[in-house]
Amino acid sequence: VKKRGGGGCATVDLVVVGSVGLDTVETFESRWAERLGGSVSYACAAARLFARPGMVGVVGTDFSVSHRNLYRRLGIDTAGLQVAEGRTFRWSGVYEPDMINRRTLSTELNVFADFRPDLPVSYTEAPFVLLGNIAPALQLHVLRQMRHARFVSADTMDLWIRTAGADLKKVISRVDMLAVNDSEARLLTGEHNLNEAGRRILRMGPRYVAIKKGEHGALLMGEGGTAVVPAFPVDRVRDPTGAGDAFAGACMGFLAARGTATPSVVREAMLLGSVVASFAVETISLDGLSRLTRRQVEVRRRALMAMTPH
Amino acid sequence: VKKRGGGGCATVDLVVVGSVGLDTVETFESRWAERLGGSVSYACAAARLFARPGMVGVVGTDFSVSHRNLYRRLGIDTAGLQVAEGRTFRWSGVYEPDMINRRTLSTELNVFADFRPDLPVSYTEAPFVLLGNIAPALQLHVLRQMRHARFVSADTMDLWIRTAGADLKKVISRVDMLAVNDSEARLLTGEHNLNEAGRRILRMGPRYVAIKKGEHGALLMGEGGTAVVPAFPVDRVRDPTGAGDAFAGACMGFLAARGTATPSVVREAMLLGSVVASFAVETISLDGLSRLTRRQVEVRRRALMAMTPH
Repeated sequence: VKKRGGGGCATVDLVVVGSVGLDTVETFESRWAERLGGSVSYACAAARLFARPGMVGVVGTDFSVSHRNLYRRLGIDTAGLQVAEGRTFRWSGVYEPDMINRRTLSTELNVFADFRPDLPVSYTEAPFVLLGNIAPALQLHVLRQMRHARFVSADTMDLWIRTAGADLKKVISRVDMLAVNDSEARLLTGEHNLNEAGRRILRMGPRYVAIKKGEHGALLMGEGGTAVVPAFPVDRVRDPTGAGDAFAGACMGFLAARGTATPSVVREAMLLGSVVASFAVETISLDGLSRLTRRQVEVRRRALMAMTPH
Repeated sequence: VKKRGGGGCATVDLVVVGSVGLDTVETFESRWAERLGGSVSYACAAARLFARPGMVGVVGTDFSVSHRNLYRRLGIDTAGLQVAEGRTFRWSGVYEPDMINRRTLSTELNVFADFRPDLPVSYTEAPFVLLGNIAPALQLHVLRQMRHARFVSADTMDLWIRTAGADLKKVISRVDMLAVNDSEARLLTGEHNLNEAGRRILRMGPRYVAIKKGEHGALLMGEGGTAVVPAFPVDRVRDPTGAGDAFAGACMGFLAARGTATPSVVREAMLLGSVVASFAVETISLDGLSRLTRRQVEVRRRALMAMTPH
């Protein structure tokens, strides 16, 4: 058992890198300000259901103790969470009534602008890595430190596809799985048909590509063939923010717990990612993910299985 | 065994009413003119895989013998197909490169403008009825003639939701299943969340509501709870026209063949509808549906099952 100042106490089996932010979100029915968010928060809050995630990110000196305590309470290792002089990253956006499309109102990078993901030495031996949505150059920087990674998954976004294509292609060629949403898959490949887009991404190097389709579930392609991952039909979406990160986090957490990424295990992981994401969107910020138990996940997984042809 | 002039030779177990038309379609890669289409053509070409459908519609005196022969070759009863003085209904549209959104270029109602779906007497005893997308007043006219129907499904479209709401609500209250796409479900109920939209439609009377989501499959709600119906991920969509009609036709054809509509049979029917629709969109006009065999449907159904969690 290792001990470190940052709050860690057991070896992490999954390293997650991404943003920590304070989100101000408006929907057609309510608004909330400066609630804890960021891709690494959502992904770790989901991954901790299955594994011991270590968080790599940066916050400012204004980051509240209660947020840090939440991470600790959830069993998230924060040895990789840097504190920099200045304000924490902030994002603000408004969702259209469809609760899918959103418009960014403001992005304050703050300490995130100079973020350089240098990992605690202990993290560099972790077997599973989730490269959340940050600049591809930073994802490469993390990859260079992870000499023993057995399975790496990467997220990205339209901004990097448009502005950092060369670095992004390097990332894609070096990871085991790329997780993108349908519009990103299309933008990245110039191909509208998702089967064909998926095949083109696989030709860039990864063993698997997960194409996320929001409320419509996901498509998994690669080793073992294609899998259709259904989404649990939720009654009321309150805050879709972080759903994709929760999906990826749960998926990678499950793989880390199983210690392997065979096609059948990856399929199982995707289904759990889909189920965990359905809880994430039912409440605002991390509220749903923080309260969620493995038992609740299992109940809903079975319900979803019962809804699909069998 | 009954004989009638219209081309029938065996009792129909499913009556399908809708449009027969000649479609001129443009996509980003090609264009074809005046190819056989219309909701009743697609629905019957799909239903005939499982049952003996009887077609209720109208064509003009310009309707070609080869189209009529196609119906006959497929085993579709055309006793209910009226011929009226004038030109056959024509529709022309252009698909956006996403092959989902489309713009209507022209609609020539022609003989369809005065269509009154009076059924051959023999049809009025058929146990299963598919009310394709026509004016709700005409759907009601068909319902009044079908005194012995055991299971009726209805389609509709945004036009009728906007302009014929009162008649449409009467239709919905008298059918066993309503099949709508997601945007129609939202328009009809004023509710974005599909679970809630589905529940509101169920409160209007039907036992089941099928919410079609195109390439994302469908949601079935009602007796037996909610079912998530996956779509087969096709490699290349050439012509999405008629996919919803093929879905409904295959579904109702299967129910007619089974002679029952218990929740588990309806779920099975939906899955087959989804599989048959995936063949329909791979080719233009009725080309795919006309060549399709039960064996091909079964192979793809199994492939789709293997792609979903089990």
